[in-house]
Amino acid sequence: MRHYFKIYKNIKRSIFLGLLSVFALNLSCKKEGDTKMDEISENVSIVEKLDINRIEPLNWWVGFKNSKLQLLVHHPNISGKTVQVSYQGISIEKVHKADSPNYLFIDLNISESTKSGKFNIIFKEENKEDLIHTYELKSRKKSSEEYIGFNSSDAIYLITPDRFANGNPENDIVEGLHEKIIDRNDDYARHGGDIQGITNHLDYIEELGFTAVWPTPLLSNDMPQGSYHGYAMTNFYEIDPRFGTLEEYKELSAKLSKKGMKLIMDQVANHCGLEHWWMKDLPFKNWINHQQYYESNMGNWDGDASIITNHRRTTNQDRYASKVDKENMNVGWFVSAMPDLNQRNAFMAKYTIQNSIWWIETANLGGIRQDTYPYPDKDFMSRWAGEIMNEYPNFSIVGEEWSYNPLLVGYWQDGANNRDGYKSNLKSPMDFPMQNFIVEALNEDEEWDKGLVKMYQGLANDFYYASPKDLMVFPDNHDMSRIFTQLKGDVANTKMALSYLLALPRIPQIYYGTEILMNDFDKPGDHGLIRSDFPGGWEGDQVNAFTGEGLSEQQKDMQIFLKKLLNYRKNSKAIHDGKTLHFAPENGVYVLFRSADNETVIHIINKNDKPIELDLNRFRELGLKGKAIKNIITDYQFFWGDNITLNGKGSLVLTTKLD
Amino acid sequence: MRHYFKIYKNIKRSIFLGLLSVFALNLSCKKEGDTKMDEISENVSIVEKLDINRIEPLNWWVGFKNSKLQLLVHHPNISGKTVQVSYQGISIEKVHKADSPNYLFIDLNISESTKSGKFNIIFKEENKEDLIHTYELKSRKKSSEEYIGFNSSDAIYLITPDRFANGNPENDIVEGLHEKIIDRNDDYARHGGDIQGITNHLDYIEELGFTAVWPTPLLSNDMPQGSYHGYAMTNFYEIDPRFGTLEEYKELSAKLSKKGMKLIMDQVANHCGLEHWWMKDLPFKNWINHQQYYESNMGNWDGDASIITNHRRTTNQDRYASKVDKENMNVGWFVSAMPDLNQRNAFMAKYTIQNSIWWIETANLGGIRQDTYPYPDKDFMSRWAGEIMNEYPNFSIVGEEWSYNPLLVGYWQDGANNRDGYKSNLKSPMDFPMQNFIVEALNEDEEWDKGLVKMYQGLANDFYYASPKDLMVFPDNHDMSRIFTQLKGDVANTKMALSYLLALPRIPQIYYGTEILMNDFDKPGDHGLIRSDFPGGWEGDQVNAFTGEGLSEQQKDMQIFLKKLLNYRKNSKAIHDGKTLHFAPENGVYVLFRSADNETVIHIINKNDKPIELDLNRFRELGLKGKAIKNIITDYQFFWGDNITLNGKGSLVLTTKLD
Repeated sequence: MRHYFKIYKNIKRSIFLGLLSVFALNLSCKKEGDTKMDEISENVSIVEKLDINRIEPLNWWVGFKNSKLQLLVHHPNISGKTVQVSYQGISIEKVHKADSPNYLFIDLNISESTKSGKFNIIFKEENKEDLIHTYELKSRKKSSEEYIGFNSSDAIYLITPDRFANGNPENDIVEGLHEKIIDRNDDYARHGGDIQGITNHLDYIEELGFTAVWPTPLLSNDMPQGSYHGYAMTNFYEIDPRFGTLEEYKELSAKLSKKGMKLIMDQVANHCGLEHWWMKDLPFKNWINHQQYYESNMGNWDGDASIITNHRRTTNQDRYASKVDKENMNVGWFVSAMPDLNQRNAFMAKYTIQNSIWWIETANLGGIRQDTYPYPDKDFMSRWAGEIMNEYPNFSIVGEEWSYNPLLVGYWQDGANNRDGYKSNLKSPMDFPMQNFIVEALNEDEEWDKGLVKMYQGLANDFYYASPKDLMVFPDNHDMSRIFTQLKGDVANTKMALSYLLALPRIPQIYYGTEILMNDFDKPGDHGLIRSDFPGGWEGDQVNAFTGEGLSEQQKDMQIFLKKLLNYRKNSKAIHDGKTLHFAPENGVYVLFRSADNETVIHIINKNDKPIELDLNRFRELGLKGKAIKNIITDYQFFWGDNITLNGKGSLVLTTKLD
Repeated sequence: MRHYFKIYKNIKRSIFLGLLSVFALNLSCKKEGDTKMDEISENVSIVEKLDINRIEPLNWWVGFKNSKLQLLVHHPNISGKTVQVSYQGISIEKVHKADSPNYLFIDLNISESTKSGKFNIIFKEENKEDLIHTYELKSRKKSSEEYIGFNSSDAIYLITPDRFANGNPENDIVEGLHEKIIDRNDDYARHGGDIQGITNHLDYIEELGFTAVWPTPLLSNDMPQGSYHGYAMTNFYEIDPRFGTLEEYKELSAKLSKKGMKLIMDQVANHCGLEHWWMKDLPFKNWINHQQYYESNMGNWDGDASIITNHRRTTNQDRYASKVDKENMNVGWFVSAMPDLNQRNAFMAKYTIQNSIWWIETANLGGIRQDTYPYPDKDFMSRWAGEIMNEYPNFSIVGEEWSYNPLLVGYWQDGANNRDGYKSNLKSPMDFPMQNFIVEALNEDEEWDKGLVKMYQGLANDFYYASPKDLMVFPDNHDMSRIFTQLKGDVANTKMALSYLLALPRIPQIYYGTEILMNDFDKPGDHGLIRSDFPGGWEGDQVNAFTGEGLSEQQKDMQIFLKKLLNYRKNSKAIHDGKTLHFAPENGVYVLFRSADNETVIHIINKNDKPIELDLNRFRELGLKGKAIKNIITDYQFFWGDNITLNGKGSLVLTTKLD
C-alpha cells in the first residue's frame, strides 16, 4: 500500500499530499502480512530521501544484457544542476538537458559486475542545497530466458477489468482523480471492477481451461471521462488506484504464475491521455506530435480534426504512399483526447522501451499486448520489440493491426519476407482476417464461393505467414461486437466458431463472458455494451456466472462446451504444435485434422440442419481406420469406420487420445 | 491455302480426303500473290512424300539454345518399325514406344552447326515397304532476344474472334466439321467472325491506341457445340478453318508487326476438347487424367461429376491441403467436354512445351496468354514457362489465376518470395484483385472503409508483388460481365475505371467493344451475351462502330475518350515505367500521380456530383506549382496553382507534357 502511496504522490504531491497521506494510511491499515510489512519498511527508507519530484524508471535491475539505462528526472529547474553518482559499477555516461528547464536525462552505464543495492543520485548547484534521490538497482528474480511468453499452447482470457468483478468496492471512487462516479447503468462510466476482482476468480478462469490472462490496461487513466477503458494513460509507471495497487498487480501475477498461468500486459506506445502528468510541462519541443499546435491551443483544446491521424494504415507498406499521408498516419493523434507520442525523439523512444522492460521485470509478465501497432513510427516499433526480444528471447508480444487483409497482418510478423526489408521483431500479430473469415463463413449460406469455404480458404492463406501458429486468433475482442451477436444469436454457429479457432494452429484469445453468450444485441457494436458487467462479479448480482446461479441452460451448456474444449486443448500436443490437414468443404461439412505423435484431433463442422452421412474414406490419408475415437465434449467413444452420421448443425470435436 | 489443306487433312484424311481436296483447291483460287505461290509449291513437295499420318511438331528450327526435339509420330502400327535419319548434325538419341502401337516418340539431337533444310525420316520394318516422312528444319527469322513480349508500355485489345468481324463469309461453315450452323441470334452458336475480320480492322485498333491484340483461341475446336469460344482444342497445330488458315494467322501477325504491334496467342495447357484427334487412340495409358475411367465409359460419356476438378485452387499454395484435394484439383477435368491433359507424363509435357515454341516461331508471337493457370501440374507450369523464357528472355506470358486474393496472384509471379520455394517463371499473372477493387470502389457509396479507398488500398497491395508493372489489369474480359454492366450503366464510373487502370503501373487489357459501352444488361454475366457481335463487323450491320455510323453520342464520346487516353499512354514514359504516388481518398476525390523525367501524369477521380474545390497544396511534394498542365482529353491548358475546381463526377487526366 505504501508503495502505491509513494508512486501516486509523485503526480499530485503538491496538491494532494496531505489528503493522500491520510487516504493511503487508511488503505494500508487494510492489508497485512509479513512480506508487505517488509516492503513497507523498505519503501519508507526511500521516501525519506525522496527530494526529487520524479525519476523514471522507478528502479532498475542488474544483470541485463543491455548495460545502458536512461533516467528521466523531473523537478523544478533541475536543468541547472550537475549530477553525481558514487556506486561500484555505475557510471554516468552523459547528462542531457531538455527544452524544459525542469528535466534532465541521465545516461548511466551499469557494468556487468555491478551488485544490486541502493545508491544516491546527487544533484548539485552552486549556492543551493544538494538534492538527493536514492535509486535502487534490484537483483532479478529469474533469468531472461525464464521469461516464457504465451504461445500456441496457451489460451488467453481477455478481460476488461472495470467490467469483470469488483473485488474491492473501497477503491471504486478515489478522491483526487477526475472521474469520480460509479454508475453501472452507464455503459461508459466506471463500474468498479478491479484487479482484486480478477484475482478472486482465478480458479474460475483456470477451471474453464485458460492458461493466460490479458486484462486491458490497468495503468492510471486519470481522465475526466471514459477512463474505464484504460487506453488513455496518464502515468506509465502507476496502476490506476481504482483498479488497485502495484502490489495487487504483482499478487495477481504471482497467483497466476503459481497456477502455471501467464499474465499479459496491455501496453500503449502510440499515445497517452491528455491528462498525462507531462502534458503540462513537456520536456522537449517534440515530445509529442503536433506539439506546437497543441501548446498554442492548450487553453481551449477541442481536438481540432486537422491533427487527427488519417488512419490509413496501408501507408506503412504502400510503396506509392505520399509523404504527407505517411506522415499524417504516423504523427496524427488517434483521438483528440490522446496526445500522440513522438517516438522519433530518442528520449521518448528510450523511455517507452525501458517502461516495457520495467513492467516485465516488476510484474513477471508472460507477454505484452501492444495497442494500435501500425500507428507509431514503424522503425521505432521494430526497435522496441527488438530490444525486448533481444533481452527476453522466449518472451511474446502480440500486436494489434486491425486489418482483414492478410498481406498487412503478415507484414508485421517477425520473419516476414518483406520486399522493403522491414523486420518487425513482432512474434504475434493479431489474426483479424481469420476472425472475419470465420464470421462470414458461418453467417453465409453455403454456395460455391460462400460459407465454409471462407474458413477453408482463409486458413489456406497461412502459406504466406512466417509463423501461423504464433498469430493470435479470437472470435471477438473488447472493440468488436460480441461473437454471439456477430453470429446473430445462433448458438450452434457460435460453438462452431469457438471450437474451430481452438483447434487451429494459432494462439486463441477469448473475451470474458463469451462462455455465457454475452452479447450486444441491444446496440450492436456499442463499446460500452460490448464491455458489459460479468454477472456475479458484483455483490448482489442476481445471476452469478462463477457459480452458475441464474444462468440459462443455453449459457450453462456453452460454459461446459468451452470448458471441455479448453481443458482438452491444454494438454494437446496435436493442437499446440501438430500437423494441420484440412479438406475442402463439401455438402456443408468442413473437416480439419491436427496431429502429433499418436494424437489426432478431428474437427468437423456441419452446417446441415438435418442428419447427414459423412463418408470417412475421403480422409483415408490420415490412416485412422479402425482406431478408437472419443468425442471431446460428450466422451462418447466409437471406432473410425467407413462413415459417420452427423446429427445436425454444429461442431464435432473428436480425438484419438482416449484418456 | 494449301498449307491449311496439308495440316487439316491430317485429321480427317481417311474420311474426307476427296472432299477436302476439292474444297481446298476452291479456297486456294481465292488468294494470290508471289509469297503465297512460293509457299504452295514448297508445301506440295512435302505432301508428295507424306507417308506418315501425323508427325508433330510439324517442323522445327535450327539455332535454338535447346538442342533437343521430340517428335510425336502417329501412324497405324508404327511401333514395330525402326527409325533412320541421315542429315548432318541430326542424330536420333532415343526412340520411345508408347502404350498404343500407333505411336512412336523420337528424341532428336540437333547440333549447333546443323543447317536448315529438309531431310527424310525413314521408318523400316522387315518385309514391309519403308515409310518416309520429309521433315523440315527451318532457319529462324530472328534471334530469340528479338522476340519482345508485351509489357507495361503496351495496351492490349482482347477479341473474341467469332464475334468481332466476319472478314471471310466463305469460311463460316466448313463441311466435315461437327458444328455447321451459323446463327447470329444464338449467343452460343458461331457467328462467323474470323482472322480476316481482325486483320481488316487493324487500322481501327491501332488508331484507338492499342499496341497488342489478344484474340481468344483460334486453334481447331471441332466440337459438336459451343465451339465459338475456342477453349476446347481438337488440334494443337491447326488454325480452326472457320477462323481461317495458318497463312491468315501469320498475315495477321505480320501486319501487326509492321505497325509495331504485338500478337498474343491464347494457349491452353490444361485440357483439350473431347473431339481432339488423339482421344480415339491415346498414346499412353496416362496421357490424360482419369483416362481409365474415360476409356471404360467412352461409348456413352456424359461427364460424370466425380472426375471434374474441385476447382479449389488454393490447394496449390495451402500448406494444409489434403493430398486428395490437391490431386482432385490437379487431375480433375475442367468440364466434362474437356479431357484434362496429364502433364506429369513426360511426353505430354514435352509436347506442350514444343507446341508453344512452335507457335512463337511460326507466328512471330509477341506473347502468350495461358488459360486456367493453376489447374495443370504446377511444377510442369513452372517448367513450361521456364523453358519458354529461357529460350526467349524478352518474351512475355500472362497467366490466368481467377482469384481476388492478391496472395494467390502474387504467388504465381516470377520473383515471388514464396515460402515453399515455388518459382513460377511466369512474368504476368492477371490482376483480378485490382479489377474487383475498381468495381467495388466505384459501385459503393463513399464511407470510411468503402468506395475509392478500395482502389487506393488495393493498389497499396503492390508492396507484395515481385513486379507490379508486369501484372495485367483489365476492366473485364471474355468471361466476366462487361464493365459497363458491372458499373450499372454509369458512364462516368466506367470512364473512371478505364482511365484509372490505364494510368496504373500495369499492362492494361481492354475487351473489344468496351469503347462503345457494350454490355450484357439483358442477362448479366451470360457468356454468350458478353461476347456479343461488334457492330460493323458483319456486312449489313446497321450500326458500324468502325466508322461511327449509327453510334449514340455516348458511345462516340467513350470511343474518343479511350482513344485519347490510349494514344497518350502509347508514348508516356511516366505511365510505362514511372514512379507512382497516390494520396488517400478524401471527400470523394482520389488522386494518383505517375512521373518520369519531366513528365508527370495526374489522374484525378471525383465521385462528387456537384462541383468541388480541390486544394492542390496537399500535393506539394510533387513540385508542380506553377507548371503548365494539359488535360489529355480536352487539350485545355492551365497552370498548377493552389486549387482547381472539379466540375462533377468523372475522371480528369492531366499531364505536364504539353505536346
